[in-house]
Amino acid sequence: MKLKGIALTAGILISLNLGIAAQQQPQTLSLMPYPAQVDQQQGGFRLAPDFTVATSGAADERLYGGATRFLRRLDGRTGLFFTQEHVTASSKQGQQGLLIKTSRPGEVKLDEDESYRLKVDNKGILLEAETDIGALRGLETLLQLVLADEQGYYIPAIEIQDSPRFPWRGLMIDVARHFQPMEVIKRNLDGMAAVKMNVLHLHLTDDQGFRVESKVYPQFHEKASEGEYFTQEQIKEIIRYADARGIRVVPEFDVPGHATSWVVAFPELASAPGPYTLENNSGVFDPTLDPTNEKTYEVLQGFFAEMAALFPDPYFHIGGDENEGKQWDANAKIQAFMKKNKLADNHELQTYFNNRIISFLEKKGKKVIGWDEILQPNLSKSSVIQSWRGAEGLAQAAKQGYTTILSNGYYIDLLHRASDHYLNDPLPAGNTLTAEERKRVLGGEAPIWSELVTPTTIDSRIWPRTAAIAERLWSPREVNDVEDMYRRLDYISFRLEELGLQHKRNQQVLLRNLSNGKPIEPLQTLVDVVEPMKGYTRNPGGNTYKTYSPYTLFADAATADAPAARRFNTLVEDYIQTKDGAARKEIIQWLEKWQENHALMEPLIVQSPVLKSIEGLSANLSNIAILGLQAMNSSKGTMAGKKAADHASDTKQAMEQLEKAREQGGRTELQIVDAIEKLVMQDSSSPVGG
Amino acid sequence: MKLKGIALTAGILISLNLGIAAQQQPQTLSLMPYPAQVDQQQGGFRLAPDFTVATSGAADERLYGGATRFLRRLDGRTGLFFTQEHVTASSKQGQQGLLIKTSRPGEVKLDEDESYRLKVDNKGILLEAETDIGALRGLETLLQLVLADEQGYYIPAIEIQDSPRFPWRGLMIDVARHFQPMEVIKRNLDGMAAVKMNVLHLHLTDDQGFRVESKVYPQFHEKASEGEYFTQEQIKEIIRYADARGIRVVPEFDVPGHATSWVVAFPELASAPGPYTLENNSGVFDPTLDPTNEKTYEVLQGFFAEMAALFPDPYFHIGGDENEGKQWDANAKIQAFMKKNKLADNHELQTYFNNRIISFLEKKGKKVIGWDEILQPNLSKSSVIQSWRGAEGLAQAAKQGYTTILSNGYYIDLLHRASDHYLNDPLPAGNTLTAEERKRVLGGEAPIWSELVTPTTIDSRIWPRTAAIAERLWSPREVNDVEDMYRRLDYISFRLEELGLQHKRNQQVLLRNLSNGKPIEPLQTLVDVVEPMKGYTRNPGGNTYKTYSPYTLFADAATADAPAARRFNTLVEDYIQTKDGAARKEIIQWLEKWQENHALMEPLIVQSPVLKSIEGLSANLSNIAILGLQAMNSSKGTMAGKKAADHASDTKQAMEQLEKAREQGGRTELQIVDAIEKLVMQDSSSPVGG
Repeated sequence: MKLKGIALTAGILISLNLGIAAQQQPQTLSLMPYPAQVDQQQGGFRLAPDFTVATSGAADERLYGGATRFLRRLDGRTGLFFTQEHVTASSKQGQQGLLIKTSRPGEVKLDEDESYRLKVDNKGILLEAETDIGALRGLETLLQLVLADEQGYYIPAIEIQDSPRFPWRGLMIDVARHFQPMEVIKRNLDGMAAVKMNVLHLHLTDDQGFRVESKVYPQFHEKASEGEYFTQEQIKEIIRYADARGIRVVPEFDVPGHATSWVVAFPELASAPGPYTLENNSGVFDPTLDPTNEKTYEVLQGFFAEMAALFPDPYFHIGGDENEGKQWDANAKIQAFMKKNKLADNHELQTYFNNRIISFLEKKGKKVIGWDEILQPNLSKSSVIQSWRGAEGLAQAAKQGYTTILSNGYYIDLLHRASDHYLNDPLPAGNTLTAEERKRVLGGEAPIWSELVTPTTIDSRIWPRTAAIAERLWSPREVNDVEDMYRRLDYISFRLEELGLQHKRNQQVLLRNLSNGKPIEPLQTLVDVVEPMKGYTRNPGGNTYKTYSPYTLFADAATADAPAARRFNTLVEDYIQTKDGAARKEIIQWLEKWQENHALMEPLIVQSPVLKSIEGLSANLSNIAILGLQAMNSSKGTMAGKKAADHASDTKQAMEQLEKAREQGGRTELQIVDAIEKLVMQDSSSPVGG
Repeated sequence: MKLKGIALTAGILISLNLGIAAQQQPQTLSLMPYPAQVDQQQGGFRLAPDFTVATSGAADERLYGGATRFLRRLDGRTGLFFTQEHVTASSKQGQQGLLIKTSRPGEVKLDEDESYRLKVDNKGILLEAETDIGALRGLETLLQLVLADEQGYYIPAIEIQDSPRFPWRGLMIDVARHFQPMEVIKRNLDGMAAVKMNVLHLHLTDDQGFRVESKVYPQFHEKASEGEYFTQEQIKEIIRYADARGIRVVPEFDVPGHATSWVVAFPELASAPGPYTLENNSGVFDPTLDPTNEKTYEVLQGFFAEMAALFPDPYFHIGGDENEGKQWDANAKIQAFMKKNKLADNHELQTYFNNRIISFLEKKGKKVIGWDEILQPNLSKSSVIQSWRGAEGLAQAAKQGYTTILSNGYYIDLLHRASDHYLNDPLPAGNTLTAEERKRVLGGEAPIWSELVTPTTIDSRIWPRTAAIAERLWSPREVNDVEDMYRRLDYISFRLEELGLQHKRNQQVLLRNLSNGKPIEPLQTLVDVVEPMKGYTRNPGGNTYKTYSPYTLFADAATADAPAARRFNTLVEDYIQTKDGAARKEIIQWLEKWQENHALMEPLIVQSPVLKSIEGLSANLSNIAILGLQAMNSSKGTMAGKKAADHASDTKQAMEQLEKAREQGGRTELQIVDAIEKLVMQDSSSPVGG
């Protein structure tokens, strides 16, 4: 199954036959998610100011809007000053241009047809799709196909047939821990559309805030949001904006745990006496709704009826995670209720609660989703399980007849590398599910939990890694070459900027703040080789950072997939295997740059005390760069005369320095220590072995 | 009157006495607008995590909100993890911290007291103000005072007494030509508050669009906005957001000219038969409301009554500019009306129209503002004249008894330098107005007309230059040293980033788009020495660029006040006068960098055809850098042996190259040609003279 992967590794090489451009070098494509079938041909279609877009078939407002945005983005890149202002029903097919043919207006719903066919030759571009939503997917592919040569811009001749592997490809944004305003949601919807994702899951309530206006129970947003919530008008605007991009919006209201904000508004619904205040720490907290109190159902039903009408999607998320049941255990009335109703434990009590809620929501036409924990005996079979605990839970749920989506392995807030997420397959090769069970695996969702993110940093926590997850969920399983994924991800990451995403630009803003306005180059050099502490280690105990802490620090500027470290580590691997001279030269250049960097950092730190927390980290980088340089020089023979005893002592000291360089600094970790260690070990082994 | 200016030029040097930090270098302050009185003292107040903010007196929600934002911004810079989450009525004054004393809640209205006193010593910080609005102004000054040394962050000991020179200090945003969404308005309100501006004037209608929801006449926003308008909820949110920052919101609805969007919705109100479509060019267009049609007044009164209620500020702007009257001249009915009513010309007809509107609006409790042209005999004396045509008009209006605000000289969309705006005084020294007439000059407004700006570029057209205008309107007239203004402007510009303003970050985004994702350094070198074509020259005829054209080009990345050119030009001035060796060395470094730059640009241009329009510009920069280097080397004596004839020929050729380098490229112009010419001329004159 690696055949396609190998083809991808080499990149998609195409021969061009574009008149005078025929002799030029073939150019590599950077499609992501990679389409199901790609057939590259000779030639291509040149773009000019008279380029036009026209439609035929069953075009609708969604398509006209999408095609007009396509035109503006293409013009923004090429500066061609297209004469066409809007794509409308009266747009005529020009001599040369793009024709979009659709058969029917799509519906923004699960399992809608998103397939498309794209055919480009010297004469023009034909995009065919069953639905306008499929056409939108094809327009994104087309934008990724734009190439340039000395003559100008062109689309290479190509035939693409494409459709998604999974129908549910989601991004979950937690707007509860740190509220994320409209512009964050909108630009991320644009990013999702660019990589063909189709579900925005909004985590709207949690211990730290209640983020939606309720007209039925205004005390929710009035008392439990500190003024940061979406009005119903704004929710409608989000839904419209998403719909225009072929994206569903699934709301989540987390019950019965993660419920502090519910009981700040309604203390009488809690399982222990209040009053309550909003959380500003991270973690799992005690406040839990009382499932034995009829008022709980009255309020939930009133509120859920309102929300069921506000959010048109048939799927409705009730959370259900991490209810530790402490308040239930301590409440005699609840214990008596369990005994009376023969509910053996808190799991059975939660299922009792869930089933009452589910039964109500089903009457409102909703299918209920919940996190892993809702999967208990007697859970309604119509429910969807969102697995955060692992692939095993996912498979188990599918075997029991539940539809499922995978989130375990896609927690982008934990700042693991794109490659980790990329290789995390909802249906890995060799899975033991039957064909029917496999169909129940609907896809996956990447959650960005927002304990440690703000509107300034959230984009760099979502992008570009989410594009790799989007490919996992759209493209064939066999598209799985990590190196080629990273090559394409770099391109996609840059292109996502045109949608207003701030993952790249805001890093410089944070670095300028840290440098107190001084030139940021030394900080940039350092940040490019570190990654923020992964998993839950950055915020030990959940209370080092509070919701109101500063998220303007070095760790906030750092990203997963430290770019210079990725490059350096690849070079070292190559060099160790091949002793390649070019790799050697570049390794030495990097090491020399790092060796000198601490001296450049020191004056910055003096005038910007916020940088003190990374003084050691910066020194460590320079120190181990020196070790690396010594090893590189030594293996060239300059240390050949050294005695074995000296050498062993040097090596021990080196190992100590390397160990020290593994310590965090400013809640980030150097990512080139292992590679330098390899250089040092290779050097230290050579006199002994040689 | 230059005494204060001289003190500023040297910067504010303070001696510190902060325990162990006593021996350190004094640090320069960067306050802007510069306060009325500043008294610097020994010592200062150190910031620590237990820093607290408390209030006494008449604090209110506006102050609690502002003080909490102050706390978060200070924490975001220092990374101190302040323990205080909110400033509330129950916030206690800590051992050490900031105490804010106010006497009464302010009102967001013209002439409200905005004065404050700030006193910092080793023990703490006291901010006193008559109103909470004055306190907000003081908090911004305090944030500009934060300094750092090796021990950490501190506020220098200081006493400041401050109040504004003019009560009307505005920014006008044209949201009609290119709509600017909520986040643009909000972040610019934050920027305005940071430099103590107090009026946001929204230009809401023009030929290109009608940008506010009307419930009385929904056809306005439905037919004439292409879906881009503020809902009334959004307007209320803008007003709330502005009020929280002590900023008034003044709406403008431009009549009877600039009226295409009005008549797209209501063709029957035009002075010529329709139908009409929205303009997508720039300029002055014919569509004009019919002042002889009673329906015009019916609709305007219905709509204005709605808007008068929506916008609480007593000032209401009716535009009134650039009505060329072509439709009036050509309409027999209108001509007959004029004759019948003894209206001698179009000016009198417009005054007739204005007075009917003004009379209606005055009944609604509004004072009317209009552009210069509304100033005609018989205009109601309650009207305010906004002068776009010149200081003479301003003085004339004041002499006639009208209150006025100055906008001439503050047109930031025309991309003149900050220094030009900075020295443009509404009441220059030597003006001939009486004391009473001077009081009628309320202040000024910087208008950003949006023909050529988008949400991506608008911030870089507003900031940082508007901060210089804000200083002109707030600070004493004698604060007018250009060099020191630029020094402080650089700092303020960087600090404005923390408010989300994108003037710095988006330049890199545009350059990356232009470079097709390749490293942008050569483009950055080039953009740093050019400025976009000034005045109305970038868009000749008003139709080179349409509303839907790409604004992602090199000229959009370029800014007024090209930073490297400013530095280089200063160096050349210094060097020519002083022959300073350090200046000479840096001049040569710049010239060498520019000499080499075109070779670095060429491969970028090859793979990114959008850059072809600046190929000549880039070549010119390298060519004249070579001339500069020759001149620098020659004056060192290397060309001393050359014959006079050769020399003259070289000079002629050099002058031709310099002339060529004055041509625009990519709608930008090199800003170092004059300086290099000076170097060349000096060199060429030396053999003749010597």
